Amino acid sequence: MSQSQIPVAVLGATGSVGQRFISLLDHHPWFKVVALAASDRSIGQSYAQACRWVLNDPMPEFAREMVVVPATPECIDAKIVFSALHNEIAKDLEPQFAQAGFAVCSNASSYRRAEDVPLLLPEVNADHIQLVKIQREQRGWSGCILTNPNCTSTGLTVTLKALDDSFGVKKVFAVSLQALSGAGYPGIPSLDIIDNVIPNINGEEDKVEWEPRKMLGKLNGNKIDLSYMRFSAHTNRVAVSDGHTVCASVELARPADPEAAEEVLRAYRAPASASELPSSPRPVIEVRSEADRPQPRLDRLTGNGMTTVVGRLRRDPILDLKFVVLSHNTIRGAAGGSIYNAELLVNENLL
Amino acid sequence: MSQSQIPVAVLGATGSVGQRFISLLDHHPWFKVVALAASDRSIGQSYAQACRWVLNDPMPEFAREMVVVPATPECIDAKIVFSALHNEIAKDLEPQFAQAGFAVCSNASSYRRAEDVPLLLPEVNADHIQLVKIQREQRGWSGCILTNPNCTSTGLTVTLKALDDSFGVKKVFAVSLQALSGAGYPGIPSLDIIDNVIPNINGEEDKVEWEPRKMLGKLNGNKIDLSYMRFSAHTNRVAVSDGHTVCASVELARPADPEAAEEVLRAYRAPASASELPSSPRPVIEVRSEADRPQPRLDRLTGNGMTTVVGRLRRDPILDLKFVVLSHNTIRGAAGGSIYNAELLVNENLL
Amino acid sequence: MSQSQIPVAVLGATGSVGQRFISLLDHHPWFKVVALAASDRSIGQSYAQACRWVLNDPMPEFAREMVVVPATPECIDAKIVFSALHNEIAKDLEPQFAQAGFAVCSNASSYRRAEDVPLLLPEVNADHIQLVKIQREQRGWSGCILTNPNCTSTGLTVTLKALDDSFGVKKVFAVSLQALSGAGYPGIPSLDIIDNVIPNINGEEDKVEWEPRKMLGKLNGNKIDLSYMRFSAHTNRVAVSDGHTVCASVELARPADPEAAEEVLRAYRAPASASELPSSPRPVIEVRSEADRPQPRLDRLTGNGMTTVVGRLRRDPILDLKFVVLSHNTIRGAAGGSIYNAELLVNENLL
Amino acid sequence: MSQSQIPVAVLGATGSVGQRFISLLDHHPWFKVVALAASDRSIGQSYAQACRWVLNDPMPEFAREMVVVPATPECIDAKIVFSALHNEIAKDLEPQFAQAGFAVCSNASSYRRAEDVPLLLPEVNADHIQLVKIQREQRGWSGCILTNPNCTSTGLTVTLKALDDSFGVKKVFAVSLQALSGAGYPGIPSLDIIDNVIPNINGEEDKVEWEPRKMLGKLNGNKIDLSYMRFSAHTNRVAVSDGHTVCASVELARPADPEAAEEVLRAYRAPASASELPSSPRPVIEVRSEADRPQPRLDRLTGNGMTTVVGRLRRDPILDLKFVVLSHNTIRGAAGGSIYNAELLVNENLL
Repeated sequence: MSQSQIPVAVLGATGSVGQRFISLLDHHPWFKVVALAASDRSIGQSYAQACRWVLNDPMPEFAREMVVVPATPECIDAKIVFSALHNEIAKDLEPQFAQAGFAVCSNASSYRRAEDVPLLLPEVNADHIQLVKIQREQRGWSGCILTNPNCTSTGLTVTLKALDDSFGVKKVFAVSLQALSGAGYPGIPSLDIIDNVIPNINGEEDKVEWEPRKMLGKLNGNKIDLSYMRFSAHTNRVAVSDGHTVCASVELARPADPEAAEEVLRAYRAPASASELPSSPRPVIEVRSEADRPQPRLDRLTGNGMTTVVGRLRRDPILDLKFVVLSHNTIRGAAGGSIYNAELLVNENLL
Repeated sequence: MSQSQIPVAVLGATGSVGQRFISLLDHHPWFKVVALAASDRSIGQSYAQACRWVLNDPMPEFAREMVVVPATPECIDAKIVFSALHNEIAKDLEPQFAQAGFAVCSNASSYRRAEDVPLLLPEVNADHIQLVKIQREQRGWSGCILTNPNCTSTGLTVTLKALDDSFGVKKVFAVSLQALSGAGYPGIPSLDIIDNVIPNINGEEDKVEWEPRKMLGKLNGNKIDLSYMRFSAHTNRVAVSDGHTVCASVELARPADPEAAEEVLRAYRAPASASELPSSPRPVIEVRSEADRPQPRLDRLTGNGMTTVVGRLRRDPILDLKFVVLSHNTIRGAAGGSIYNAELLVNENLL
Repeated sequence: MSQSQIPVAVLGATGSVGQRFISLLDHHPWFKVVALAASDRSIGQSYAQACRWVLNDPMPEFAREMVVVPATPECIDAKIVFSALHNEIAKDLEPQFAQAGFAVCSNASSYRRAEDVPLLLPEVNADHIQLVKIQREQRGWSGCILTNPNCTSTGLTVTLKALDDSFGVKKVFAVSLQALSGAGYPGIPSLDIIDNVIPNINGEEDKVEWEPRKMLGKLNGNKIDLSYMRFSAHTNRVAVSDGHTVCASVELARPADPEAAEEVLRAYRAPASASELPSSPRPVIEVRSEADRPQPRLDRLTGNGMTTVVGRLRRDPILDLKFVVLSHNTIRGAAGGSIYNAELLVNENLL
Repeated sequence: MSQSQIPVAVLGATGSVGQRFISLLDHHPWFKVVALAASDRSIGQSYAQACRWVLNDPMPEFAREMVVVPATPECIDAKIVFSALHNEIAKDLEPQFAQAGFAVCSNASSYRRAEDVPLLLPEVNADHIQLVKIQREQRGWSGCILTNPNCTSTGLTVTLKALDDSFGVKKVFAVSLQALSGAGYPGIPSLDIIDNVIPNINGEEDKVEWEPRKMLGKLNGNKIDLSYMRFSAHTNRVAVSDGHTVCASVELARPADPEAAEEVLRAYRAPASASELPSSPRPVIEVRSEADRPQPRLDRLTGNGMTTVVGRLRRDPILDLKFVVLSHNTIRGAAGGSIYNAELLVNENLL
């Protein structure tokens, strides 16, 4: 480990999001993975033995021979832990790590709604990271917990932020067509999705209707004032491996035509503190002008999977605008998002 | 042919909708297929030779040895022609058949918007068939043209009709996840849809935003007063063979909770003239109470593919209700719909 | 229950093969389902509550309100039990049922290789059912155990039987492309099969290389002399819901050209005792002459899913013949096969 | 263009293999694309306008604004042309280019069987490139034609070469599960492959049974002595985007156990002249030891899609060995292969 590298660990390292963390942290310029933690069943095995790798990219060499350790603060010597834990487990474990001084960058939903926990998309609300100070004060932690939103809200919120800044967004109808990897592994049985659509994802609509309001809210002293934006969401599972598509219609405070909206989206930039980090999306938003894009298979890896891709900007006959958003659900919407959050924390000298 | 059977023909018989017509007309109690017409390339061949059959059910025996004839009135001796023609061809040919005394039951979109042409879902607007009289008067035809709507509007309109009768529907936000068979054969290239979603179907959104307004309009003397209901549609193609799923949110004039809406949907009946026909859906609407239904693979054949299946009735945070509609696109939404229309025509003594 | 109907039960009723049993036994002319048994978790619930139904056809009405009972002889009052149990459980339970006087028609592999247990495809080796007498003598059972082979061997063995009778088959090279339903539910995770092939099915190759040899063997007094036919198998999982495809090359003792082989396949008939039963395949073998058939989606339901479909008969440059076999894996290859076996048992007065 | 770069053109640039050429030639260290040629319909348009891009990787920037030119020698100023032409067109055009002094590296099948045309896999038969001299002599060409084999033969032949060198291969049974991209674009209609397998690919079995014999043959003076190895092939299309899987069984002259075979495969190296080229596969062969690998989705990009991946080495009960081979059909099996051939030509000073 070079002197300047920060030691990090992955909790829940054998699951599909855990694997994505490991893949994205391979050769990371700032972070060095020093521990992989997983459930009892895997402890003591090499990572290559313990893990059924499901990503297209091969398992990074650095991880193969690492011995899986228990997910407890005592067993891990790192500054940052990336959490791909299940929500119930995260609820108990993440505060223990924060208490013990670790910065927990979590993909779990357990603390997304806690008032003193930032729910972050750095290209949207980098300033919310200041909540960490309040969190530490209130809870007496030397570490902290940062969260990223559910994968379906991710691209949608980035797009809404750009529109909101210029036109004010009042209402949002959003219907998702979500990828299989969002359900983890083994996740959706193949017999449930071949030649099929599943028109429900448990708990997801509620998240999509709430989480963007926190991220698009204003940091007001010690807390976030939720955005008044209103949401209605339908969430669906389709036979796609990676990449969530969202069809959205929005009502604007200051109506704009599709061309003006497109211009605003293309011009959107991340806040300065979040724009030059290793995982910063380049560009933040890509606007496609073809009639049938974005498509998950063709566009999900735009900007290494960190870019939000928007297309089909057109007038909505009821509200103001219609469009389609695509975002890579396990990169920008999960592991890549947590890593980007960690980079912001470091950059803000809050580690 | 038994004396009471009506001779019918299929135009565009070798395409995927044409095949569905032939499959559904096998053993039909009222209709007897006497001619199969297709494009020049197929004329003179047996149907079995001319056609690349793509349905799961085998090609009916009656059709195998029938010789394909040209799609012109002179070459066909029947009372009813079912049209699975492409729109540009339908535009020219259908009036020729109507002029020559045939009742044309068409799946093409060419005449759906003509003021004197009924756009029919018998379980919704059976009374609109009276337009046929005006059509004959105005055009001097002994035959007539009846149309059925695009496949995505079909199930949605049936559901809206039931809700509109009881609660008044004001606005409809609809996002479709449409099956491959809706694009015909060869249709969508496999490379375009494997591990993918195509977030656009040319011309479809415009149809979904307009056609229900005609069907839900009132017959007022010589014409239809379009419904004031307003629509916003997004249409998508997904990797499903048959069965269009629509996620809908609606605003009601007299707000209703999901339970009341469910009751109304379950209680909905077709108008008397359309309720006991051979192709009448039984039931018209099936409401599923599971959290993850309807699903295309499991529910598309409900009521032999003629029933509209609705599920996930719940409150909408912006409008009033959210729900999911499923309808078989090549049965209820295409060939089965045209046949049901023809049955209504016969039953009303308008043939 | 009409006086002439035989009471039957299904063990493992909530799994995917159990569901197929229930679907196929609905309105069966001889059998009446009187009990549905499943694991502890389901006992006491209605079948509709206990079961996540995965078939395209809806759950039969008769089953919905039946209360799930334990899979023990004391809790079931029937003459025949259809076993869709997992192998380890079948190994213990099936003999208990046979001992208690039940005829066990099993889809499990546990007793397929037992010398006194018939491994049956009635259209191939109906005479092997006589082993039941020896089984009863040797084991002191009043009931018995009958088994059907693994789903991949099924269609292949039917085809080989017809060829063997006329030409003598010496060697068989077989590569399968197997459907997802063969792995049960939840079975294969969707992420493992989307845009993918899995080139292995645990234990399957060994079964395909052995089971046909028993079925194609001769009943010689008290035992079966295994066929000398030699097999080499590769087994693969592909993204198909139902229907196993097998590519086979065979060496013949008396070489035949493809036309002669085709004639023999078309002419093949089940033994008299197995040819007029309710589940007898009609026809036993269907030969398709198109260049690209059989295909699972188009041909799996031939003969209600009981027919073996063969196509692409052609010369093999190394052995003698090449061809493709398709068989519905959960109908002919599982539940339908067990029911057909039970019908043979009744017909032979061996119940 | 740096002085040392060689100007190249792509013929048939808008098709799926043409796109792969353009993608692989982006930033190629030796070659610089100076012309893109396609059919009349596209001429004069920018490549971005003319082409429906279907690859996951975005269209390279260099290509977007290039104007598509006619596929004739007069319109192209380059040293090498990469041909992704259809066979009928290739048959006429490729000799015109060779006559005019271009080195034609072709993916078409038109000249693969010509006695003086090398059919090349550089890691297998780099020495066959010497045929180019005879070709030039006999035909009076200053240019030449080099071909690469069909995509299904590719990985199989690499594997057989390694085994043949050590053990002598006598007979080969090969059954393919081929990807959709092998059929080009639009290629296979989605309705033909969803929930399905197509058990035939026109003309493919004949190629798989012949082409490896030329590549594994010996260059003997002016001609290739075909290998005596005998082949039997079955070819199938499955729902996979990229990556052909082949199940093979082989008979060896000097029988070897799976461990010995594995060692030989791992140790296989390309001939010296082909081992350090920009497109040389690294490694030539990767052997996977998991029970269920190689899999197309997980393994096709091994070695940037140039490596042959082998797994499941085991004894064959009839012949000697069974195994599974995976090769990327549009990289190693098409465009990447042609580029590798061109590199070999340059390296041998035969350009």
